[in-house]
Amino acid sequence: MAKKILLVLYDGKHHAKEQPLMLGCVENELGIRQFVENHGYELVTTSNKDGADSVVDQNLKDVEIIISTPFFPVYVTKERMDQAPDLKLCITAGVGSDHVDLDEANKRKIGVLEVTGSNVVSVAECVLETMLVLVRNFVPAHNLAMKGDWDIAQAAKMEFDLEDKVIATVGAGRIGYRVLERLVAFNPKKLYYYDYQDLAKEQVDRLNQVSMLLNGRGDIVERVTSLEDMVSRSDIVTINCPLHENTKGLFNKNLISKMKDGAYIVNTARGAIVVAQDVADALASGKLAGYGGDVWFPQPPPKDHPFITMRNKFGGGNAMTPHISGTSLDAQKRYCDGVKDILESYFTGKNDYRPQDVIVIDGHYATRSYGDKK
Amino acid sequence: MAKKILLVLYDGKHHAKEQPLMLGCVENELGIRQFVENHGYELVTTSNKDGADSVVDQNLKDVEIIISTPFFPVYVTKERMDQAPDLKLCITAGVGSDHVDLDEANKRKIGVLEVTGSNVVSVAECVLETMLVLVRNFVPAHNLAMKGDWDIAQAAKMEFDLEDKVIATVGAGRIGYRVLERLVAFNPKKLYYYDYQDLAKEQVDRLNQVSMLLNGRGDIVERVTSLEDMVSRSDIVTINCPLHENTKGLFNKNLISKMKDGAYIVNTARGAIVVAQDVADALASGKLAGYGGDVWFPQPPPKDHPFITMRNKFGGGNAMTPHISGTSLDAQKRYCDGVKDILESYFTGKNDYRPQDVIVIDGHYATRSYGDKK
Repeated sequence: MAKKILLVLYDGKHHAKEQPLMLGCVENELGIRQFVENHGYELVTTSNKDGADSVVDQNLKDVEIIISTPFFPVYVTKERMDQAPDLKLCITAGVGSDHVDLDEANKRKIGVLEVTGSNVVSVAECVLETMLVLVRNFVPAHNLAMKGDWDIAQAAKMEFDLEDKVIATVGAGRIGYRVLERLVAFNPKKLYYYDYQDLAKEQVDRLNQVSMLLNGRGDIVERVTSLEDMVSRSDIVTINCPLHENTKGLFNKNLISKMKDGAYIVNTARGAIVVAQDVADALASGKLAGYGGDVWFPQPPPKDHPFITMRNKFGGGNAMTPHISGTSLDAQKRYCDGVKDILESYFTGKNDYRPQDVIVIDGHYATRSYGDKK
Repeated sequence: MAKKILLVLYDGKHHAKEQPLMLGCVENELGIRQFVENHGYELVTTSNKDGADSVVDQNLKDVEIIISTPFFPVYVTKERMDQAPDLKLCITAGVGSDHVDLDEANKRKIGVLEVTGSNVVSVAECVLETMLVLVRNFVPAHNLAMKGDWDIAQAAKMEFDLEDKVIATVGAGRIGYRVLERLVAFNPKKLYYYDYQDLAKEQVDRLNQVSMLLNGRGDIVERVTSLEDMVSRSDIVTINCPLHENTKGLFNKNLISKMKDGAYIVNTARGAIVVAQDVADALASGKLAGYGGDVWFPQPPPKDHPFITMRNKFGGGNAMTPHISGTSLDAQKRYCDGVKDILESYFTGKNDYRPQDVIVIDGHYATRSYGDKK
């Protein structure tokens, strides 16, 4: 056994000291060094992950476990797996394992696990935040305020309410469902979802009961089987599905053209699910009123990424942040604990992982969210 | 009878044409010109409201009705009332009538009405938006993204989740209650409120039922009778009470010193309820992690207002906008309709106003929210 663990995290720099709660950076190492060393493993922690001679590449030949985050992912490609004959386990400290070539992992029986519950709430909150920021025109209004410019008309002319809007989610899994829970309190006109399976009956009942209590109407949530049909009826579309071959580039010029004029897209799933230039073009033309979220492709993005400069026809409509929704300080604590639990299970040979954390194991997909959906 | 109506609104400029939904500006006149002229009234619309020789002051001598908004308020002082012997009615196109000297209005039996339901939802949404923006550290993260700067640690080091926080509202009236409805879906640790009266039992029951359905725990909401006690227990405090003599300057250095370290304040009620410099000092010292909202005193603020330059110790924590929460385009339609209903009732002499719209009438306060609470 190689007994080497490669931990790839973002640099905390001086922030790591200023904020000791920030466990998910190179300096603070998820708080696992002592724990893994006690189990006889060598821990190599780095943010140096790209380029031919990266620290990651230098350590592939005898690595057994690679741990990374979606915020600053190490792409575990076929080529890298070829260099890592002892690789047994890839762990995502967070949610979303598309930075690993899952088909190749299957072939080699490399396990891929993530800490599912760790940041679903954080991401769902980010979806609500981004919707409110876009629909209520926060960024242009805040920028005016910071200049001491009291132009109410300028700030209000693209300010709407979230209430009474038709809102749709692509994907109604752990995050998408939590988005629906939070949205229902805002008294939407209708909540649609598109997914390969129905929400559980108890989830639907719960959403409808809350809607009846707060808004006086049940029957708020409905599954739509045609994506084009769904987006054509929606004021706001939020993307909460994994990236895989069927979702890559899904929101392109063609699908966006089916959307309502002046609609919004919120994407906190993966950047590659949309075609960035098509989004930017749709904002410029007035087709879309706003786009926001925290995911880009690639990450970090190049300086000329369309998401940096895109604006709607009134100069607003951009609510992008770096990929941070799942790495709130509250989430960091949860995913550090989760990584530790996975390692513990692996070290002891029990492999009694929480089923919801397992993406790929023993050569097959453990969830239908990724892979073989068709 | 004077038969003159003075309508004081913000300038829409080119925005008024670009966005025809923006009824609440000088150019679009709430859509009421034809209506009031049909009733034999002269309509004078202006944004020129300050200075000795303002259009407002020039028209006081024979004005019968003054209509204004909270976003760009005309201050109807004792001095101005002295100049307006025929003034019978002040209407707020929106919610919040503290720009009228209510005691003086009482003495002169001037009616003061507002359109209560028109923007309570819009303001409640703004409260949620501002909380999420502050707690999740949106502004610093967005600014990084717009510079193409992928510093996850910088963005994440003040990013928390809203979930599991103790959140308190000062005021649990129409807006405060709606804030609680929306918050409960975010799975708070506890929701406190401070008010001169209990929430209705059915409101408390509803919040607890929703909490039980979504979060598996009832008993989420609790009235606290000591304001100091409440703020000392809360991670986030939101202000949703009217401005009057008992709330003016309420959040000063002294009260803020009782708050938890690193707490947040969200104020979409009235700027004068807080002491702006004390807030800015508390951010700079690290006592507060963030302050946001859309209300200032005075409005528009001077260029050196503390809310423009205030930042927390990491350079963020400011989520201010101009006063726009209640003037979303959806709200504008509602308050224009509401003003028309009030005028209709007045013109016909029925005076059958919606009770909730009446602040002052026939020489007395119609609501305990303002005035005689002690």
